[in-house]
Amino acid sequence: MTLPHPTTDQISLPIVLAVLGDPTRLAIVRYLASKEGVPLNCSKFLDLASKTNLSYHLAKLREAGVTRTEAVGTSRLITLRRDDLDRRFPGLLDSVIAAAGDDKALPMVGTADTEIDA
Amino acid sequence: MTLPHPTTDQISLPIVLAVLGDPTRLAIVRYLASKEGVPLNCSKFLDLASKTNLSYHLAKLREAGVTRTEAVGTSRLITLRRDDLDRRFPGLLDSVIAAAGDDKALPMVGTADTEIDA
Repeated sequence: MTLPHPTTDQISLPIVLAVLGDPTRLAIVRYLASKEGVPLNCSKFLDLASKTNLSYHLAKLREAGVTRTEAVGTSRLITLRRDDLDRRFPGLLDSVIAAAGDDKALPMVGTADTEIDA
Repeated sequence: MTLPHPTTDQISLPIVLAVLGDPTRLAIVRYLASKEGVPLNCSKFLDLASKTNLSYHLAKLREAGVTRTEAVGTSRLITLRRDDLDRRFPGLLDSVIAAAGDDKALPMVGTADTEIDA
């Protein structure tokens, strides 16, 4: 199954900023950045929000073009669209991730290793 | 009259991003950055929004710590809090302004020169 994603050119600055302007979504992006290149099962983020809320947050990130969600069987694998974001908004993602890295007010993603094989 | 502003340490990353995630507010910030060091009368931005909406947007920017608003008589003079933002989130404002500079979807601030003497 393929979920809808904006093309690189469709990624909008105000929408990306608005979507990143949420502690839970920032925590997801910070964690994805720390594991870059590894598709993460969305269940990894279940300690950040209820399943319904998490689905909502992950859909917002995907629809804004911040993340890519791949549905594999019943799992959803999430990756950061770093190349696309860097092409559209050079330096933005790095500065957000650096600032988020220092932000103790953001929730932490747990250490449980629940990634599945893609 | 002094309006409330967060201290530098109180400036919050998710709140700043959320507040910047709006085309009108991005247009205001882009324009302030292009005139940096010059306090701008809020009437400068009246072609972006109605007076009520503009007050709302400028309050959001001020409350997030993105701008400083100084009330001088009946005028409100707006400046970008670049030093404070750069200290809290190095590189963030520059990358947002650079991305906004290329964004043709953002509204333009008119060329009418309505700054007043501070």
